Amino acid sequence: MPLKFDYIAKDPHSEARRGRVHTAHGTIETPVFMSVGTFGAVRTLDHTEIEEIGVQIILGNTYHLYLRPGPEILKDVGGYHKLIGWNKPILTDSGGFQIFSLPHQRVIGEKGVTFKSYIDQSYKRLTPESDIAFQETIGSDIMMVLDVCVPSTSPYEVCVDAMKRTHRWAKRCKLAKTRDENSLFGIVQGAIHENLRKESAETLVDLNFDGYAVGGLAVGETDEEREHFTNFTARLLPTQKPRYLMGVGTPHDLVRSVRAGIDMFDCIIPTNHARQGVAYTFSGKVKMRRVFHAREQSPIDPSCACYVCKRFTRAYLHQLTKCEEPTGWKLIAYHNTWFYERLMEKIRDTIVAGTFSQFAKDFLSHVEE
Amino acid sequence: MPLKFDYIAKDPHSEARRGRVHTAHGTIETPVFMSVGTFGAVRTLDHTEIEEIGVQIILGNTYHLYLRPGPEILKDVGGYHKLIGWNKPILTDSGGFQIFSLPHQRVIGEKGVTFKSYIDQSYKRLTPESDIAFQETIGSDIMMVLDVCVPSTSPYEVCVDAMKRTHRWAKRCKLAKTRDENSLFGIVQGAIHENLRKESAETLVDLNFDGYAVGGLAVGETDEEREHFTNFTARLLPTQKPRYLMGVGTPHDLVRSVRAGIDMFDCIIPTNHARQGVAYTFSGKVKMRRVFHAREQSPIDPSCACYVCKRFTRAYLHQLTKCEEPTGWKLIAYHNTWFYERLMEKIRDTIVAGTFSQFAKDFLSHVEE
Repeated sequence: MPLKFDYIAKDPHSEARRGRVHTAHGTIETPVFMSVGTFGAVRTLDHTEIEEIGVQIILGNTYHLYLRPGPEILKDVGGYHKLIGWNKPILTDSGGFQIFSLPHQRVIGEKGVTFKSYIDQSYKRLTPESDIAFQETIGSDIMMVLDVCVPSTSPYEVCVDAMKRTHRWAKRCKLAKTRDENSLFGIVQGAIHENLRKESAETLVDLNFDGYAVGGLAVGETDEEREHFTNFTARLLPTQKPRYLMGVGTPHDLVRSVRAGIDMFDCIIPTNHARQGVAYTFSGKVKMRRVFHAREQSPIDPSCACYVCKRFTRAYLHQLTKCEEPTGWKLIAYHNTWFYERLMEKIRDTIVAGTFSQFAKDFLSHVEE
Repeated sequence: MPLKFDYIAKDPHSEARRGRVHTAHGTIETPVFMSVGTFGAVRTLDHTEIEEIGVQIILGNTYHLYLRPGPEILKDVGGYHKLIGWNKPILTDSGGFQIFSLPHQRVIGEKGVTFKSYIDQSYKRLTPESDIAFQETIGSDIMMVLDVCVPSTSPYEVCVDAMKRTHRWAKRCKLAKTRDENSLFGIVQGAIHENLRKESAETLVDLNFDGYAVGGLAVGETDEEREHFTNFTARLLPTQKPRYLMGVGTPHDLVRSVRAGIDMFDCIIPTNHARQGVAYTFSGKVKMRRVFHAREQSPIDPSCACYVCKRFTRAYLHQLTKCEEPTGWKLIAYHNTWFYERLMEKIRDTIVAGTFSQFAKDFLSHVEE
């Protein structure tokens, strides 16, 4: 079945929307935060843990999966869901972002990109067609088109060329797609130029994708530009399709971007910052490595219902993070992923209750970023 | 209450013994494998997981705990059990082994040892008296004397001197001990000299410790010498006290050493080898990184009842270990720790049933080492 988006409610005072995305592997309540599970696991956690936490959908990275395990193994085992034993939705990026971040190790042409494998130094090739074929092999519930990413501060002509090629590739991706159950999102480019964003959104909407991502942000522009173009681009997209802001972000970013009308997010912050001992709470960040936590018998957040807050003290997490024990990383990653899920729940609930704008205002002004 | 050892059963065909060690934090069924929890966690696992697995006792490393969190914090939070939230028994080594492994960063005298901290490069000092005081601050259920470790291939006179100082320090440790609930084990030295082993065992037994460790092995001697001196030393020790073989070992080592009359073991193998993707089973080792596991839909061991074997395939664990995902390390560490606990259960059960010798023979001859 093709992807379907139910539009349930809208906040009366902002663009925030409450919806449901129906995929071949189940329904996602939106706004949703997707946990990053690059190689098959949300870093330090296992499926039982992310199920307990309430993770609805995980993201696989096409670039990394293309290199390992690669198309042959993924095909033989029956795709990513089967490989990792996860029966809920997954989304895959196209790999474009990673490939374009390798300036000395890739060649880009109109047909596609050639890049060097970091595993065996061999050259690999992806075209819009083979990228979609690989994402279908992965068995992704939501695939992304192969787009051309350039720094948002690039010269205007570079931004135009990248956008136009993105559109041609988006069309080729759409034509290459063979299965209903693997839905496909277009990616709006156009850097920090309103006319380009407008042209990009219109072109992609005409191609009729299952959803739309806001691409080309968090690549060099200021925070203000980023917020402006998130708002600006979201409004250009159809109400009845999900909108995805890739690679974002902090809790504040999520609240701000939901307010702009974004439905889907992914970010490595919850697990990545956990490694540095940074825990997130509704009262702000707690930096567990700080020496004043060494004797604290309280949990990360006494009001948090997660397993880690119910069982472990800050003193213990301080000791583990100072000693770089993987268990410390894991416990904070668990808590952070739990916090992100509860934040998204709160966002969804307040949108339905009509109190989201007040919640967002309070959160953004009272919680330290 | 002081430590008490109940002698329950002995294998009719070997020195293997079944017993119970009663400590201030509960009873341990022996022979027992102790999981290493250096800084406060069994690497990659948390307490809920090790409780599920059935870990009876964890080992803390005095050397590492002395440097971090250090005596002040441990005292302020009320000891290691309190710091880490673990209410079952713990054992601590004396730190001697680690300090003596730092040839260029320590000075040894009759009074004690001075060594350099790897954390802040400052010099730290431990004497038999301060070592025991620190282990009491840790709140260890089973403390070890500060001993002098030398390579087992050292010149005879070096072995004699190390042994004699070990005896003088053992006496000072015993005198320094102030609390019944923190029991103390002596450590038999004497390298690979039967007369020294005999002298060491007799001297320590006269001092009447709560238990005895076989020290000075796995430091340069051959496998045959090690097995011989484990057997030889174990027989020199009193039947009614627990015997501990430090830092050992592989599943084969455990089976062989139980047969020699050893009751207690600790080793980092289950969690450390997990990092390299090595899983242990009753059919031998499974090296998860090997390419032929890439498509295997079976678990590590279909006959294993652990959570990992019930849920995850070899193909998945292969992918995670090849990608160095911490989740792969953790899942195999979980399985291996589970396997070690089931092996010890099997050993305890067969001793009581009188079938241990047959089990040991089958295991040692049929399971690849």
